[in-house]
Amino acid sequence: MTTTVEPIAVPGVSTDSGVTTPAGFRASGIASGIKDSGALDLALVVNDGPKQDAAGVFTRNLVKAAPVLWSQQVLTERRLRAVVLNSGGANAATGPEGFQDTHATAEKVAEALTSDEQEVGAIEVAVCSTGLIGERLPMDALLPGVDTATSALSSSPESALHAATAVMTTDSRPKQANASHPGGWSVGGFAKGAGMLAPNLATMLSVITTDAALSGEALDTALRAATKATFDRLDVDGGTSTNDTVLLLASGASGVTPSLDDFISTLTDVSMSLVRQLQADSEGVTKLVDITVTGAASDGDAVRIGRTVAEDNLVKTALFGSDPNWGRVAMAVGRSDARVDPSMLSITINDVPLLADGVPAQDRSTVDLSGPHVEIAIGVGDGDHAATIYTTDLSHGYVEENSAYSS
Amino acid sequence: MTTTVEPIAVPGVSTDSGVTTPAGFRASGIASGIKDSGALDLALVVNDGPKQDAAGVFTRNLVKAAPVLWSQQVLTERRLRAVVLNSGGANAATGPEGFQDTHATAEKVAEALTSDEQEVGAIEVAVCSTGLIGERLPMDALLPGVDTATSALSSSPESALHAATAVMTTDSRPKQANASHPGGWSVGGFAKGAGMLAPNLATMLSVITTDAALSGEALDTALRAATKATFDRLDVDGGTSTNDTVLLLASGASGVTPSLDDFISTLTDVSMSLVRQLQADSEGVTKLVDITVTGAASDGDAVRIGRTVAEDNLVKTALFGSDPNWGRVAMAVGRSDARVDPSMLSITINDVPLLADGVPAQDRSTVDLSGPHVEIAIGVGDGDHAATIYTTDLSHGYVEENSAYSS
Repeated sequence: MTTTVEPIAVPGVSTDSGVTTPAGFRASGIASGIKDSGALDLALVVNDGPKQDAAGVFTRNLVKAAPVLWSQQVLTERRLRAVVLNSGGANAATGPEGFQDTHATAEKVAEALTSDEQEVGAIEVAVCSTGLIGERLPMDALLPGVDTATSALSSSPESALHAATAVMTTDSRPKQANASHPGGWSVGGFAKGAGMLAPNLATMLSVITTDAALSGEALDTALRAATKATFDRLDVDGGTSTNDTVLLLASGASGVTPSLDDFISTLTDVSMSLVRQLQADSEGVTKLVDITVTGAASDGDAVRIGRTVAEDNLVKTALFGSDPNWGRVAMAVGRSDARVDPSMLSITINDVPLLADGVPAQDRSTVDLSGPHVEIAIGVGDGDHAATIYTTDLSHGYVEENSAYSS
Repeated sequence: MTTTVEPIAVPGVSTDSGVTTPAGFRASGIASGIKDSGALDLALVVNDGPKQDAAGVFTRNLVKAAPVLWSQQVLTERRLRAVVLNSGGANAATGPEGFQDTHATAEKVAEALTSDEQEVGAIEVAVCSTGLIGERLPMDALLPGVDTATSALSSSPESALHAATAVMTTDSRPKQANASHPGGWSVGGFAKGAGMLAPNLATMLSVITTDAALSGEALDTALRAATKATFDRLDVDGGTSTNDTVLLLASGASGVTPSLDDFISTLTDVSMSLVRQLQADSEGVTKLVDITVTGAASDGDAVRIGRTVAEDNLVKTALFGSDPNWGRVAMAVGRSDARVDPSMLSITINDVPLLADGVPAQDRSTVDLSGPHVEIAIGVGDGDHAATIYTTDLSHGYVEENSAYSS
């Protein structure tokens, strides 16, 4: 259970700092007392501009947490001055009073950031929460904590680390990434989550910053393109939490407006690094599993097949046991609701072809699954659409962490 | 891991015998050598008539095993003289040669049953297989085994038990059920499977017999009605195997033609008893969990919500830990793709209301989950459709049995 799995590195991306790498941003992470343990639990990220363009993507779960409902509303303006994030409580399924708590938090941050030079409104403040679903937040700790977090704001790498740490729940380590483009701008960010549907205390949250100068529309396009290939392809246990949120804030402080393609490329790299870190820190993980589907009839079918295999408990437990039981992969493909012709199906694990055009190929005993990396390639032979899903195995550690025996 | 969970009893149904309870049937179960262990691995059920009407339902998995493809073809005639079943190999994803093996098995059974009095054709013989996917069956053991199984045929309760035992894979005990109707006819059957998508070696198989006199059309209608409310509502880990099959054979030996309603009622009771036994013997089970959804906008939505909650690893691990973490249930409902209005959602666990119309109700600490029975009631408040899904928790035992460490 205590084995550490190292994340797969993304070329060109550093993991030593995050949201304060781009110019124009300050961050902080403090202990407000939401968590009884006294651990960091409140993070603040502030965009000092000169621009405050922003974009966000949110969970598709219909039971959305109060902070998601609030931040979606705020983001319709595609402009953010600040993001406040707390761990220790998801503020989901908390009814109208929970929404009022989120609103009060945004109001408090706006008030704390308002000075002689600037007037900040609550409508410029996104809110993210993560933790147990169905319980109200201790506002008597949270609201004073906003003042403490505001005082602690700084553009240092340490502050970025504190922010990345303050959003952790069952995460064993903070997750940051940053990349600098030769064109004179950079992207940085942090993420938390011990799974896509983050096990135990729910939620995948990420805040990404850039000092590139881009409009809200361009940021929205870039964020959707990047998340589609990264965060949306991470699937540890099939879930989509009530609080999943990825926010992108642009300060324009570099004075450079990159091409949209360049920006999407760097943003995707940073997002991918965060996804690799989430994958490697998911609860109970012992294997990092990439499932690549090719030859599908549509993008939707490629993703559907990859997700069904990624979520299949029999495939996942076999991988935990280092057993290349490709029959379970075939079974999962067949039940995926995607268009599949069994006589065209091929399955390869760690480069060993096991099923070729519907007929068994090499013996499964020739597959080496002793290492932490597993690549499952599924050929559908029915089109030219492809997708890769990033997942993990299902281990005793996962059951232990999520069965409350450990808490 | 060694704790035994007792199945929930179905009133009016006995579990002391199975397919030979109705008149007109003989059965056997023998060790043909397919399994290296020497355990029983080949079962035969023969309908001596006077009638041979039959019906079958099969897996919806697109990667269908050879015996499923064969038996579906056979069942288009709605007539079965015999069913031959083997454990020790699923004969799935085995290509055209695997289909030839199934065909040869049916031919061999037809030959063995042919006598001076009767000519039996392969087209009257259904074949079922269960075990590892992707490996050919040892036909040199299986074919001679058919002769042995034919010699062993008898209408005794012991023979029914041998047949129910010979289909077991990771099942810890045989599963039989029978019910006699005061109208002078009866229904009996067996099932195997350690889950819906039967973990480890795949497959849920069931053969049910009756001495009622009913047409193939009536049997088909009855079987679909009964399975919809029983086998189709069992969901241990979201899977649908490559081999799932339920066959219903009617001998007409009672000379009684019951009303369709009466027959469906008894058939459903027998099926439900088998489902309760499957649920209680599923791999690693420590909790028997019934999820009842009411107030859904459609039957499809009710089933969708129930299945999503039943398959959710966070809900299942919380139940293993006796933790009434209803927030995870709310999350699963929200991600189910069913129509859900969070402000109308209610969740009750073991009679304690935890969420009422979208607002937290009683404290979860008041829920007692120390026993093996868990009832989760989900009120959607959006219509009048309902469904109950039967599932289990997700335990260390499940991971252990399926990770190959145990094999």
